[in-house]
Amino acid sequence: MTALQNDRFLRALQRQPVDRTPVWMMRQAGRYLPEYRATRQEAGSFMDLCRNKELACEVTLQPLERYELDAAILFSDILTIPDAMGLQLRFAPGEGPIFDKPIRTDAEAKKLFVPDMASELGYVMDAVSTIRKALNGRVPLIGFSGSPWTLATYMIEGGSSKTFSQIKAMLYDQPQTLHHILGVLADSVTAYLNAQIEAGAQAVQIFDTWGGVLTPRDYEAFSLQYMARIVDGLIREKDGQKVPVILFTKGGGQWLEKMAETGCDALGLDWTTDLDDARARVGDKVALQGNMDPSVLYASPERIREEVATILGKFGKNNGHVFNLGHGIHPEIDPEHAGAFIKAVTELSPAYH
Amino acid sequence: MTALQNDRFLRALQRQPVDRTPVWMMRQAGRYLPEYRATRQEAGSFMDLCRNKELACEVTLQPLERYELDAAILFSDILTIPDAMGLQLRFAPGEGPIFDKPIRTDAEAKKLFVPDMASELGYVMDAVSTIRKALNGRVPLIGFSGSPWTLATYMIEGGSSKTFSQIKAMLYDQPQTLHHILGVLADSVTAYLNAQIEAGAQAVQIFDTWGGVLTPRDYEAFSLQYMARIVDGLIREKDGQKVPVILFTKGGGQWLEKMAETGCDALGLDWTTDLDDARARVGDKVALQGNMDPSVLYASPERIREEVATILGKFGKNNGHVFNLGHGIHPEIDPEHAGAFIKAVTELSPAYH
Repeated sequence: MTALQNDRFLRALQRQPVDRTPVWMMRQAGRYLPEYRATRQEAGSFMDLCRNKELACEVTLQPLERYELDAAILFSDILTIPDAMGLQLRFAPGEGPIFDKPIRTDAEAKKLFVPDMASELGYVMDAVSTIRKALNGRVPLIGFSGSPWTLATYMIEGGSSKTFSQIKAMLYDQPQTLHHILGVLADSVTAYLNAQIEAGAQAVQIFDTWGGVLTPRDYEAFSLQYMARIVDGLIREKDGQKVPVILFTKGGGQWLEKMAETGCDALGLDWTTDLDDARARVGDKVALQGNMDPSVLYASPERIREEVATILGKFGKNNGHVFNLGHGIHPEIDPEHAGAFIKAVTELSPAYH
Repeated sequence: MTALQNDRFLRALQRQPVDRTPVWMMRQAGRYLPEYRATRQEAGSFMDLCRNKELACEVTLQPLERYELDAAILFSDILTIPDAMGLQLRFAPGEGPIFDKPIRTDAEAKKLFVPDMASELGYVMDAVSTIRKALNGRVPLIGFSGSPWTLATYMIEGGSSKTFSQIKAMLYDQPQTLHHILGVLADSVTAYLNAQIEAGAQAVQIFDTWGGVLTPRDYEAFSLQYMARIVDGLIREKDGQKVPVILFTKGGGQWLEKMAETGCDALGLDWTTDLDDARARVGDKVALQGNMDPSVLYASPERIREEVATILGKFGKNNGHVFNLGHGIHPEIDPEHAGAFIKAVTELSPAYH
């Protein structure tokens, strides 16, 4: 493997000194970029794009051509695992992901299995190794997965949900069925992320998009516990390099202390918790990634720069900050505004290091 | 006025001793009840129902016939104020509320005015006095309003939103325009709630449904500040009785201390914060209302009872708890499950008093 030319991201995740705050954006390879929309058009469906390693590599690299980003993230979907379990993922226009075979009964749950990484999910690993090669040491490559709880919401609801009525009915009435599903998912996610690391991912992030809809006690029992199990089972060093793991629970601001106890390296933060407050609560236990409201990118470049300055000020002159949005970039954002954001981080952050 | 026969709710809001924990449900007069659906059918549109004082009274009283509730809440909509401002509220099937004339520019904002309570919103006050009379002292009547920030989201987005892109663009780029809108709304909500109190409301609740989508600093500047201004301007005593005010910010669990400083009597809590934690943070400054996840009502009556017991245990043997759901009851809930919830509170809570 080629030596890494820019290790700011990996260093910051380990709370080591850097020359400036590293920055990337969740969903940085996405619909806000016209070049992404062109490649997507060429590929066919969204899943066709995920399954085509050359095109998945192409879109992964697109934002790096435009912006001074410090990491690339594998282009894929969080629902590849349940799809590989035979739930038949498809995307309906305007409706989001749909599983034609949702899991509702204990009998259906008991049939779930850890998919074979090579045969069922080999296309993801092919994309990882293709991208890693194409990056040629320019920046590190991030692998990722949905959290067991988050994957389970889609598997049990059969798609997106506002009220999570199906999975919550199961949580309250058939907790053992849900624990079984989450256990299989935790084993699957562990194997999936380890396969990504073997294929070339240099850091991994677990997206717990829906952990925030739970009570504190249910969050611990049905989401955090399984993420902790995954963290325990991950390859944490590869080729003499630490492979950091980031946990991100959207809406999880009230539970940062508990998340930090899982042994992960960093926590992703949405914008409802200030970085100074978060840092005071987790101390030097973990690095923090975030946390600008992606809606700030609707504002003028001047205002975006102001917000970047505020957030940098909140974290202060400390090690262990990766700048990011608090959620994926919205599809309607002007790419120049995204550029203004990244430029502001690269220009304003050296003063804090 | 007839003397109040059940003052548990008002006493608990003032942290006075009670014989058992009072209970009511947000959206207790609503679609989960077949008798509500029948009256709604008869009335015509949702707004027709709100504008018909006899039918609004009928649906307000329906849940009291079924369940041992300790409060009634005015049947109305949170968007009556912007409707009275001329924004033309309508409800599209499956889409929720729509304003055909959203506010986008400073010029449009400057034309907003505090609606005349008697002429433009008299139908709400008529409903309040009709309901109060019909209640005949059985339980207290709660009046309510949306918070300025929450009303502004609908007025500026033109309806419901997932990303709040329009109002956030305004917040970041034209904060003075947004502050102007929020100021007019704060004055309107103050006048509106005071008119409800004059008409017979014995407690009031401010619903800040969307305050939780803000950063901590923007929550203070664009939502909490205006709610505090309303609290300051409210009639707090009527006919020798205290008129308590409840603030409810959904997703506001991280900001309870700041909310308690507004001078309100109670905070509504969703289920992402535990009552013991909340109580430790706000002390005896305010009462707490909540906080069962409304999705627990999808579970069996036995499981519902278990959850009620857990929540009562979290609050413990202290004064100042009003039991409620952490959000409005979902339309698909079986009315018998709602009954099991209320029965559990009435049966299990005396042990804590």
